[in-house]
Amino acid sequence: MTGQGTTPKTDPPAPPLAPGTRRPGGRTARTRAAVRDAVLTGLVEHGYPDLTVEYVAEHSGVHKTTLYRRWGNLEGLVVDALDLAGEDSWSPPDTGSLEGDLRALARTTAASFEDPAAAAAPTAFIAAAFQSERAAEALNAFYAERFARCGAIVERAVSRHELDRRTDAGALVRAVVSPLFLRLFITREPVDGVLADQSADAALAAARAGVFNSRAAST
Amino acid sequence: MTGQGTTPKTDPPAPPLAPGTRRPGGRTARTRAAVRDAVLTGLVEHGYPDLTVEYVAEHSGVHKTTLYRRWGNLEGLVVDALDLAGEDSWSPPDTGSLEGDLRALARTTAASFEDPAAAAAPTAFIAAAFQSERAAEALNAFYAERFARCGAIVERAVSRHELDRRTDAGALVRAVVSPLFLRLFITREPVDGVLADQSADAALAAARAGVFNSRAAST
Repeated sequence: MTGQGTTPKTDPPAPPLAPGTRRPGGRTARTRAAVRDAVLTGLVEHGYPDLTVEYVAEHSGVHKTTLYRRWGNLEGLVVDALDLAGEDSWSPPDTGSLEGDLRALARTTAASFEDPAAAAAPTAFIAAAFQSERAAEALNAFYAERFARCGAIVERAVSRHELDRRTDAGALVRAVVSPLFLRLFITREPVDGVLADQSADAALAAARAGVFNSRAAST
Repeated sequence: MTGQGTTPKTDPPAPPLAPGTRRPGGRTARTRAAVRDAVLTGLVEHGYPDLTVEYVAEHSGVHKTTLYRRWGNLEGLVVDALDLAGEDSWSPPDTGSLEGDLRALARTTAASFEDPAAAAAPTAFIAAAFQSERAAEALNAFYAERFARCGAIVERAVSRHELDRRTDAGALVRAVVSPLFLRLFITREPVDGVLADQSADAALAAARAGVFNSRAAST
């Protein structure tokens, strides 16, 4: 597997883009995805501090020297895998009502952690952030961007006159999912669809009461 | 330090209590506290998987063979330290109003993690739970008991006619603190007193709207 970097095939000439720009679907992107997959598998199998660059090399087919040159070290590999995870086309639920959107958001979150296979990688990232400052920063950026996308739920609700336009969207969507994350990763209690609905309904009641109106919020 | 177990002093005769019962202030309790302190220091310094029984022996002055005999292994030491942490006399705030109690609970939680020295041990336990199933169970028990104590807030509010008696106290108090835990340990965002008040107010608004009334709750 590790000899794969010797293929003689050359890439087509690259357009003059800014440094670091990737050609989607090109060899660079494929390499990065293979490395990302190996990092995810390794994180799930061994956890952050015990995952090694050697493991990633073996499981991605990318030579160790290439990994060190491009990603620096294990921390760089984990951070890039998390960055790549954020580059998807996910968009928040759009059910036609604020209550429906918030419940769907909460249910999707609960369901994604109820399936052990689907939960393994995000759980490994959350655990890695306890060990690595750079992983913590990458996780922070991932969620900031993810919650920013959820702002669309609030914009639509405001335009439907379901919500005060001063509502702090970030505070509201964080309130929706936080009772789930508390139980999953702090108190280690089960979550289900009933709890998801309750979390969404609680955040909605607070939003309607004006608790998340921006003058009162700091996020 | 490790030769300390050889002191010839004998303990006074123990009353016929159930197995495992400790005499408060006795040598057993002092040993356990010394071991707990060493486990906390070690968890903060090295993190769960890298902390060793040797470290605990050196820093507690309790011989390694005693540690293995009484606690089994590193996991047993961590679990017992967490059990001991739960055996304090903490009681939830009692300010005279539900809003005051919930805000004080949220502010206390935020403040306890704002101080790096105070935050280190609980953070290390939360991190250890990602690595050890037994630590996760102990953390679950710790928080279950802690939130059960917070039930007094709800009982007083019900007796003051501030809250429906069907309110699920566990769901309400978890809602109060969960936006703080989300930011501290998942999204890695700062928390402060303003956010604490907002979290308390949001949970209170939801409780007043009946979202936590027990027919709708599963916790």
